[in-house]
Amino acid sequence: MSHDLPVSTITDHTQLKQESPSQNVIVQLLKLYYKDGWVSGTGGGISIRKNGFVYMAPSGVHKECIDPEEIFVLDEEGKIVYDPSKRESKLPVRPVKLSACSPLFTLCYKHRNAGAVMHSHHMSTLLATLIFPEKEFKITHVEMIKGIRGHGYHSTLVVPIIDNVAEECDLKDSMEEAVLAYPNTYAVLVRRHGVYIWGKDWLECKTHSEVYHYLFDAAVKMKQLGFDPSTY
Amino acid sequence: MSHDLPVSTITDHTQLKQESPSQNVIVQLLKLYYKDGWVSGTGGGISIRKNGFVYMAPSGVHKECIDPEEIFVLDEEGKIVYDPSKRESKLPVRPVKLSACSPLFTLCYKHRNAGAVMHSHHMSTLLATLIFPEKEFKITHVEMIKGIRGHGYHSTLVVPIIDNVAEECDLKDSMEEAVLAYPNTYAVLVRRHGVYIWGKDWLECKTHSEVYHYLFDAAVKMKQLGFDPSTY
Amino acid sequence: MSHDLPVSTITDHTQLKQESPSQNVIVQLLKLYYKDGWVSGTGGGISIRKNGFVYMAPSGVHKECIDPEEIFVLDEEGKIVYDPSKRESKLPVRPVKLSACSPLFTLCYKHRNAGAVMHSHHMSTLLATLIFPEKEFKITHVEMIKGIRGHGYHSTLVVPIIDNVAEECDLKDSMEEAVLAYPNTYAVLVRRHGVYIWGKDWLECKTHSEVYHYLFDAAVKMKQLGFDPSTY
Amino acid sequence: MSHDLPVSTITDHTQLKQESPSQNVIVQLLKLYYKDGWVSGTGGGISIRKNGFVYMAPSGVHKECIDPEEIFVLDEEGKIVYDPSKRESKLPVRPVKLSACSPLFTLCYKHRNAGAVMHSHHMSTLLATLIFPEKEFKITHVEMIKGIRGHGYHSTLVVPIIDNVAEECDLKDSMEEAVLAYPNTYAVLVRRHGVYIWGKDWLECKTHSEVYHYLFDAAVKMKQLGFDPSTY
Repeated sequence: MSHDLPVSTITDHTQLKQESPSQNVIVQLLKLYYKDGWVSGTGGGISIRKNGFVYMAPSGVHKECIDPEEIFVLDEEGKIVYDPSKRESKLPVRPVKLSACSPLFTLCYKHRNAGAVMHSHHMSTLLATLIFPEKEFKITHVEMIKGIRGHGYHSTLVVPIIDNVAEECDLKDSMEEAVLAYPNTYAVLVRRHGVYIWGKDWLECKTHSEVYHYLFDAAVKMKQLGFDPSTY
Repeated sequence: MSHDLPVSTITDHTQLKQESPSQNVIVQLLKLYYKDGWVSGTGGGISIRKNGFVYMAPSGVHKECIDPEEIFVLDEEGKIVYDPSKRESKLPVRPVKLSACSPLFTLCYKHRNAGAVMHSHHMSTLLATLIFPEKEFKITHVEMIKGIRGHGYHSTLVVPIIDNVAEECDLKDSMEEAVLAYPNTYAVLVRRHGVYIWGKDWLECKTHSEVYHYLFDAAVKMKQLGFDPSTY
Repeated sequence: MSHDLPVSTITDHTQLKQESPSQNVIVQLLKLYYKDGWVSGTGGGISIRKNGFVYMAPSGVHKECIDPEEIFVLDEEGKIVYDPSKRESKLPVRPVKLSACSPLFTLCYKHRNAGAVMHSHHMSTLLATLIFPEKEFKITHVEMIKGIRGHGYHSTLVVPIIDNVAEECDLKDSMEEAVLAYPNTYAVLVRRHGVYIWGKDWLECKTHSEVYHYLFDAAVKMKQLGFDPSTY
Repeated sequence: MSHDLPVSTITDHTQLKQESPSQNVIVQLLKLYYKDGWVSGTGGGISIRKNGFVYMAPSGVHKECIDPEEIFVLDEEGKIVYDPSKRESKLPVRPVKLSACSPLFTLCYKHRNAGAVMHSHHMSTLLATLIFPEKEFKITHVEMIKGIRGHGYHSTLVVPIIDNVAEECDLKDSMEEAVLAYPNTYAVLVRRHGVYIWGKDWLECKTHSEVYHYLFDAAVKMKQLGFDPSTY
């Protein structure tokens, strides 16, 4: 089976279908996530795994301005199958690089059978890691918790928080530990940095992303109003 | 009289007219409500009743990405007249399901002669139910209160708050009780969950939705600034 | 001189020019102001005076969904020159009504030679009238104050606050008094309600609207952080 | 080498490329920055230097409504090469003026070899200068700090704050002093006013702008939650 080829007719994320080419999904979701403040200043990103291939947005570029042709394609061993910086094009080709998040995305594919992983720096993720100084973010008795697979309204949703480090790739060991230690989480928070969120495919990853961001924001606002999000 | 058939020329909610096909109204309002943070993470929804038919957005899908062909049509007894998951199509058909909110929407049609009902998880609805720990949300002397049918600037607007439960369908009894006990309300808040809002047609439902969300948000912000929204 | 006829080629407020037909300006600014939360739930509005005619958005309708053909045209004595509810049209005609704000807009035309007046219910206007319980909103030493005609960085910008009443038309006397008593203001706040803002033409009215909303919001946020906006 | 001529086919900032004509870059970024609340009420602006020419948005006009033909072009000595108010056009020509920020933009070109400079009045810039009453804004141990050239996660990012004055052009001396005294900053805050931000080209200026605004906002929110952004 060969990897996806992007098509040019998708102009808005609401036109995406489950089966849309992965490059188009990545490009349109990044535009949406830029508007939402989840990716900005070249930070944040998204990756999809489908049919034995892994698709990754390039690093260090404005995430809302990526062309479908600029998405890296890797096989499941991490070998680059399509390198956008070496493509032939009539237009100038930007020297895009593979993301330093790459090994972190791979962790979720390997240990949790994820179909898509996203990385956000949204303000609510930063603040959520400050109001929970211990190693876990916790929230309970909020309806939206149901939106995370395996959770109900009465569940206490727990998200592990790992410490940040100078280089993103050095998060690998502590993130791997968290991913293995918390089999019910679909997110890992990074203190004073952001969050990694995944799902079984890009649609579940999108649902999870919306729900987790809502819950991080809810926890901060509850705290400001004098309520403890972790108890009922 | 037969049920509406959607047309494809509406690309924006500002192009909608009172008489627009109900499927198009639902699709465009969901896109708008997604932008506003009223529906997200597959949560929230909207339903319209017109000419003896009830139109309902499907469940468990990204609400801003629904096609007009994916809207369920029921008769007033709740029998499915058009099931989008069984439609013929050249494109792949998603196995969409009828919403678990369905009996809650029906309550408002039955007891209050509503023409449209919406369900929102917006952050302001969650917080409004926290700052009012008793069974009623109350606000008075705010101009926007006039936007709710039967209310004036000097009115105290009361919205009943019912307790949340594990399964949405199990809200039916307590919501029915609230709908009957508060004949002047066009909304029922669900603690730590969200709100149901209705109106005599989709236009009034939209007005009421904007006004109630404004008032929930105002109450939270007033509280944060040290003002009691329920007194003057 | 005859009144403007709307043209159909303006699709976005950024395409407007000073000389654009007044109906198009009103329609596009209302879409923008809806996005900004300045008009919602059928509340708020805008009016323009040009070449001896007054153009007014209709009342009680969703302000972001108005067609250029639905804008009332009056002469300067307040006589209706064009009544959109009586126009001929192949499409159904909504029974739109003249706004109850009409006499309040007229005040600004009469006493202050305004070319455009807008009315907003934005949350910041409501909160600004709460944090200033006396009859004046005051802010000083904020750069954006320069954006209001006749004001500099060191000015204390004063906006009179009048009390709200049950019926909008009954604001006329107190607003007239405020407009005459404060010759340097281009805005009148209405307690627990909103604001009226004007300028010599629609472009200055738009500038003033953006600046006043910024300053109301700044004052609320300064207060929350422990700063007094009215002193330096 | 001659200066850029704008092209008309760019309709959205996400279509911009590094090599896009500078006028188009300015026009599209201003639309984006208006949506973000960075420029409003005719305040704020942006300038680009490329191939020996300096491109500047005009002053005192609505920044999201500028045409590519209305961008001033200067040579590096500050002589106007293209004056939009004197251009030939079939359409009416607005009497646009060169921005009073012009000497401040020029400072960054001269002393810091900037390729683009922007000026924002965003609420977060105003508040950031209030919560840091001394002459420096400081934040440390936040991942997004990495987005500013030469900074890492463990860096303390310092932004000098200069006092505001009645006339923008009179900021020149104190800004020049700050620019020279802080060789590692790519931003200068102006107390109770806003910020100037630059980068080696418009892409880096955009990255820096997004990162600095994120950090100003983060500092205000951290402070509100009881955390000191300048220590760890």
